[in-house]
Amino acid sequence: MEISFDVYELHYRKALLEDVIPFWEHHSIDNKYGGYFSCLERDGAVYDTDKFLWLQARQVWTFSMLYNRLEKGEDWLDMAKHGIMFLQKHGMDQDGNWYFSLDRQGSPLIQPYNIFSDCFATLAFGEYALASEDENCKDMALQTYQNILKRKDNPKGKYSKAVPGTRPLLSLGLPMILANLTFELKWMLSDEKSEEEMEICINEIMNFFLDEKQGIIYENISPDGSHPDCFEGRLINPGHGIEAMWFVMDIARHKEDDELLNKAVDALLTTLEFGWDKKYGGIFYFRDARGKPPLQLEWDQKLWWVHLEALLATLMGYSLTGREMCWQWYEKIHEYAWNRFPDPEHGEWYGYLNRQGEVLLPIKGGKWKGCFHVPRALYRCYEEFRNFSLK
Amino acid sequence: MEISFDVYELHYRKALLEDVIPFWEHHSIDNKYGGYFSCLERDGAVYDTDKFLWLQARQVWTFSMLYNRLEKGEDWLDMAKHGIMFLQKHGMDQDGNWYFSLDRQGSPLIQPYNIFSDCFATLAFGEYALASEDENCKDMALQTYQNILKRKDNPKGKYSKAVPGTRPLLSLGLPMILANLTFELKWMLSDEKSEEEMEICINEIMNFFLDEKQGIIYENISPDGSHPDCFEGRLINPGHGIEAMWFVMDIARHKEDDELLNKAVDALLTTLEFGWDKKYGGIFYFRDARGKPPLQLEWDQKLWWVHLEALLATLMGYSLTGREMCWQWYEKIHEYAWNRFPDPEHGEWYGYLNRQGEVLLPIKGGKWKGCFHVPRALYRCYEEFRNFSLK
Repeated sequence: MEISFDVYELHYRKALLEDVIPFWEHHSIDNKYGGYFSCLERDGAVYDTDKFLWLQARQVWTFSMLYNRLEKGEDWLDMAKHGIMFLQKHGMDQDGNWYFSLDRQGSPLIQPYNIFSDCFATLAFGEYALASEDENCKDMALQTYQNILKRKDNPKGKYSKAVPGTRPLLSLGLPMILANLTFELKWMLSDEKSEEEMEICINEIMNFFLDEKQGIIYENISPDGSHPDCFEGRLINPGHGIEAMWFVMDIARHKEDDELLNKAVDALLTTLEFGWDKKYGGIFYFRDARGKPPLQLEWDQKLWWVHLEALLATLMGYSLTGREMCWQWYEKIHEYAWNRFPDPEHGEWYGYLNRQGEVLLPIKGGKWKGCFHVPRALYRCYEEFRNFSLK
Repeated sequence: MEISFDVYELHYRKALLEDVIPFWEHHSIDNKYGGYFSCLERDGAVYDTDKFLWLQARQVWTFSMLYNRLEKGEDWLDMAKHGIMFLQKHGMDQDGNWYFSLDRQGSPLIQPYNIFSDCFATLAFGEYALASEDENCKDMALQTYQNILKRKDNPKGKYSKAVPGTRPLLSLGLPMILANLTFELKWMLSDEKSEEEMEICINEIMNFFLDEKQGIIYENISPDGSHPDCFEGRLINPGHGIEAMWFVMDIARHKEDDELLNKAVDALLTTLEFGWDKKYGGIFYFRDARGKPPLQLEWDQKLWWVHLEALLATLMGYSLTGREMCWQWYEKIHEYAWNRFPDPEHGEWYGYLNRQGEVLLPIKGGKWKGCFHVPRALYRCYEEFRNFSLK
């Protein structure tokens, strides 16, 4: 079978540059108080003005990344700087931890209970520093990165509600984000430091969170890697597992580690099989590892980011190993996602479909969806297809 | 129109005594470690053994209440005692606050960050004390009640993630539960104390949380009763509003306050109109007061407790004011709920339907659904219909 990779390459480039990026450029800038609006209705109208650190930082990263990797457009750098200035002014508390949310003016609303705010701030300042060569931003990235490593064994600190000792649990989120973050920051870390941290994360993900027998990635585990029989211990978030596998593939490619690469692809394929909705298509948001009823009422919904991560992960799997199963899955997910998520009338992607694949909420952005997963995956898929075309 | 109230009376009595209560009697008792299982599959099989304080306490209340109000069955008192003993042994921390959850054996899992654990513990010990005449249990109820009143201005304590001052918010949950709790504890409180506390709650609910212009009850408000334009500030939980209105009707009946009664019925009817799904029927779980997209992905689902509260509230509204609109709504909700929630094969009610009214999760119990809303509403509806029949 002859695949016209250049058609896909063009498809992704067009979607990125003529649809998604313009949507955020037109609708998300807060010219009055700085930073970005992320709560955008179907047509881009702002329906809420609170500023969530995850999304402020992620949008900075997106525009800096496009500047660094796609084209040195000054508009993109300005867009990123607009977010950086707001973050510098309002994002951090006195101890150097990043708030979870601010109001429109920048006053803090929710305390720094969530270490992922810090992770995404680091990602933002790092990528922006690379684009702008701003030393202060580089320092901020390094400083926050160090602070995360210090906090990582007790990430919620005093906000943790778990009684110590009864049932210790580790969560996938932190090692997976740290794997990606360290990979992204490689240019500013010593080789020794970045290799060491990536090694720690890869070990945790592939030898503990990945269950050898079932071949799927758990969301929470006991420190010894076992699975306590409780809601959290049985939880599978297929999108998270899939995303983690392309983070691992990035590192495996860099290390030229074929064994790791194939292990990640194996886990990806098993997770897709486990997470795919055989009745209506698409990938479930949550499942219980033992088939018990999940706690999350939104378990059967189809989320934009899950499908974008799956497009990229299967494409990378195919590109890096040539395994046909990866391409078969890519096509299946492509057919599902591209027919349901994009909004041809107003642009960008819907975020939330119900199990049947109908739009559940017509928003383009909110507390959790911003200018990040769509452009990141579109750019990365474009890049992968371009590499194919160049071969 | 002649309504055969005795048919309804029999219907509710039968459902309560021949279906729902036996379901919990057969499936929920943990004979090995004490307390109750609440995570029950469709057929009653236990799928998780963690013990959530809300549900442990609520089941104690249910069986004590049936003993006190319906029939002095020793089995029911034993059932309640089984839960009381577990709660006495494991439920409280050293400072007299109630944990949120325990493992099967009773070791604490989640800290007492949630004041509603204390509210339901008070409800349980109070009702059980009335049934058993156990003075220790009465003391425990009084002590916890006092502790709640002490904590109520800062219910989450150190677990609160809100930055003080930026956007203070009050939540409906506490005044509404305290209104009901105080009403239930009347027999053990001085008249002065109970009247005073009920007055405070009624004032907060009816003059602050109830928006005069829209006629609906908000989930969160500013301390001055205004509505900050943010996700929490715009949130409407119709089921909560409806439940609060029958709590208020209980008190209005007791005080023989017709003005308050009619105000509660007005709010009930407006909330039903606002919360009803005109396309598929049933009452939405969440809505945004200004019609913006809600944050909760489960916003369009149809939950068992919402519909039970609505059955009882409309029936009470009709019984206490004779307003025809209440009966029309009762019939509409009756038709919807009784055709979808009960499981004729295995008994009890499903908890969670999707927007279309199909079963989303086939569980009969979980982290939030236990032996409480179904039997409480069935008993209360039975009682209301019996009063009609006796008229």
